[in-house]
Amino acid sequence: MKAIKVGLLGIGTVGSGTFNVLRRNSQEIRGRAGRDIEITMVADLDVERARCVVGPDVTVVSDARAIIANPEIDIVVELIGGYGVARTLVLEAIDAGKHVVTANKALLAVHGTEIFAAARAKGVMVAFEAAVAGGIPIIKALREGLTANRIEWIAGIINGTTNFILSEMRSKGLDFAVVLKEAQRLGYAEADPTFDIEGVDAAHKISLMSAIAFGSPVQFDKAHVEGITQLQAVDIKYAEQLGYRIKLLGLTRRRENGIELRVHPTLVPMARLIANVEGAMNAVVVQGDAVGTTLYYGKGAGAEPTASAVIADLVDITRLHTADPDHRVPHLAFQPDAMSDTPVLAMEEVVTSFYLRLRVADEAGVLSSITAILAESDISIDAVLQRESAEGERQTDLIILTHETVEGRMNRALARMQGLPTVLAPIVRLRKEELA
Amino acid sequence: MKAIKVGLLGIGTVGSGTFNVLRRNSQEIRGRAGRDIEITMVADLDVERARCVVGPDVTVVSDARAIIANPEIDIVVELIGGYGVARTLVLEAIDAGKHVVTANKALLAVHGTEIFAAARAKGVMVAFEAAVAGGIPIIKALREGLTANRIEWIAGIINGTTNFILSEMRSKGLDFAVVLKEAQRLGYAEADPTFDIEGVDAAHKISLMSAIAFGSPVQFDKAHVEGITQLQAVDIKYAEQLGYRIKLLGLTRRRENGIELRVHPTLVPMARLIANVEGAMNAVVVQGDAVGTTLYYGKGAGAEPTASAVIADLVDITRLHTADPDHRVPHLAFQPDAMSDTPVLAMEEVVTSFYLRLRVADEAGVLSSITAILAESDISIDAVLQRESAEGERQTDLIILTHETVEGRMNRALARMQGLPTVLAPIVRLRKEELA
Repeated sequence: MKAIKVGLLGIGTVGSGTFNVLRRNSQEIRGRAGRDIEITMVADLDVERARCVVGPDVTVVSDARAIIANPEIDIVVELIGGYGVARTLVLEAIDAGKHVVTANKALLAVHGTEIFAAARAKGVMVAFEAAVAGGIPIIKALREGLTANRIEWIAGIINGTTNFILSEMRSKGLDFAVVLKEAQRLGYAEADPTFDIEGVDAAHKISLMSAIAFGSPVQFDKAHVEGITQLQAVDIKYAEQLGYRIKLLGLTRRRENGIELRVHPTLVPMARLIANVEGAMNAVVVQGDAVGTTLYYGKGAGAEPTASAVIADLVDITRLHTADPDHRVPHLAFQPDAMSDTPVLAMEEVVTSFYLRLRVADEAGVLSSITAILAESDISIDAVLQRESAEGERQTDLIILTHETVEGRMNRALARMQGLPTVLAPIVRLRKEELA
Repeated sequence: MKAIKVGLLGIGTVGSGTFNVLRRNSQEIRGRAGRDIEITMVADLDVERARCVVGPDVTVVSDARAIIANPEIDIVVELIGGYGVARTLVLEAIDAGKHVVTANKALLAVHGTEIFAAARAKGVMVAFEAAVAGGIPIIKALREGLTANRIEWIAGIINGTTNFILSEMRSKGLDFAVVLKEAQRLGYAEADPTFDIEGVDAAHKISLMSAIAFGSPVQFDKAHVEGITQLQAVDIKYAEQLGYRIKLLGLTRRRENGIELRVHPTLVPMARLIANVEGAMNAVVVQGDAVGTTLYYGKGAGAEPTASAVIADLVDITRLHTADPDHRVPHLAFQPDAMSDTPVLAMEEVVTSFYLRLRVADEAGVLSSITAILAESDISIDAVLQRESAEGERQTDLIILTHETVEGRMNRALARMQGLPTVLAPIVRLRKEELA
């Protein structure tokens, strides 16, 4: 059978990885796909560098539109990134009848609805396994592996940079700023790490998984996004003493009246596997009503892990590109007419448990005045840790873990506690999830 | 669109689970599959009990052939188990042009080659996600999610009964026989637990995964199979002191001249996620050349987790049942003409590292005579643990961890060590895998 011809838009790290893996494993890939999959054209602004990567047999152009306009090309792989040019080119490729593979979570989180609708109208596939958790086949697991289930929640470590930073902060007892510099030096964090450390990248990814799990449109704009820049080493230490690790989780959960969609640092019990995912690794926990708890673990970034996902998509498309669209898996798992418009809940309505650290005066009655506020707010306490104050010290740290409550209620209780004269500094509040 | 009609052969635990989940989540499943999937016929020898499960709207028969002969039925789900009747009925269903879903690993491990060939000849699908690791979509991950990779090895905790027993032996310091009884009482082990505790069930599953990973036929008959019945609590304790957990692993690894295919108790470093998989849970680690290490975790048995996998297969078949066979994923991942006949290596040729426990006389020169044999055999030592002997004792335990070596070489060294007059009891030898 004739080879499937692929055009690459952008040949940086992931593009080079895709080219190399496709060539190195061509025999295995052909054996599985039933025909050759060949990158025959590459577009990159840096034509010289691109030529060095792909050699003389591949056409290199500077203009991506030369690929889109080429009737020989079956599949366009978009690896440019960002929301601007990438959006235009993906829409043009769809319009030209090309199937599209993309690793661009930002693009799909923001413009997914428009892009999937265009693809459907044109009868082409847009595949994006590489957009979430790198080489872990989590999109496939959610869209195809767990179709029997009513998905209840998903919790993921889906940003390697922040997980690396948190692992280092914990194991070395260092503060965020120090570890960030080290991560940048080692290449685990970019020169401008904003999207990673502020949780935006994780929010892109959890928004995509949420849409697939619950059959709702991609609602990144409604996500609560909180990064790790404010996290202090002392809270990691106290959490550890109480049997928890702090991870930046992307979380989405189905509630009766809507969907929770949030990214924030989270205490997770050490006994959970996901609490033991260290360094730049990713892991996603999916809770289904039939299957129970499942977990998927692997490298969330890097040239070849991401290429692994891009190529899996190429093989899927190779199998189905001439098939009736009915034979294909819907972009967001559910058929267009079965999508729901379940709203994302405001953070005030989210249900979670909490870790509180209060700097308090070391005097009689302090604990009682604080616990009284919690009791009046109908928030029940799970554990209390009071640090022994050193001799002569007049202040101490009081750590409280609560059971589940509504966030709005906690906010009101926090405002009251903060007003107590014995509470001497802004209260640190982190969320905690038992994930069971 | 018209509903897909399913006939169930056998409605025990998994059959009831499948019926219940399909009914409970019918809206979600239809939303994903694009049409209804309905169990319209059930065959079971116990017609009365079957009627209680499925109610009056489903036809219950005692003769499975009434389902196979019914032209209304699109898909037959085989949940009878075993190699006998199940084989005959699956082949007859295929011959009648039905697609087949089965959770029967024993059947596929022993008769897979015959069954897949028959299905190919007839143009129908045989799906078996439920045959390996229950609800974890590991067959899909291997067949579709990791198609870019040259798979290097797979290591799995794929038998919940034995993992439950090992977890209990470790946490409570009890011996195998005691824990087995408790597991039987709790329903974690069957009345006749032979297939589980002797490693046969795990061997069925790793044989299937090996075939999919390496594109070779299912070679269960060539697998090395060793269970946990001989394992002693003392070795779990020593392993722990050296930083290892003992797990019953199914292992398959690609070597230059063949494939390793084996099931045995294995020391795994505690720092690995898979070493921390406790109780009846399953987990599979897959190492690919592009993706690196990935892990898949979840419930490996039980009514609804297994039903989750059965229904995922039903949805896949629903999507593709009228498609050209070229649009479907090959049964063993590789196209028939791309299958290889890579042989399974004899255990003598397997490369692994070892844990040795020797009961030795507590006298000068013992350690040196043993390490001399290892040195002469070109086996290098990773760690030694010598228990302090209690006062008055004349014997002591000597634990040795080795680096990787060929098993045949270790066998010869062991025979020599066993012959030493200072070695007072049969040497205990376990295999150890770093899994990194």
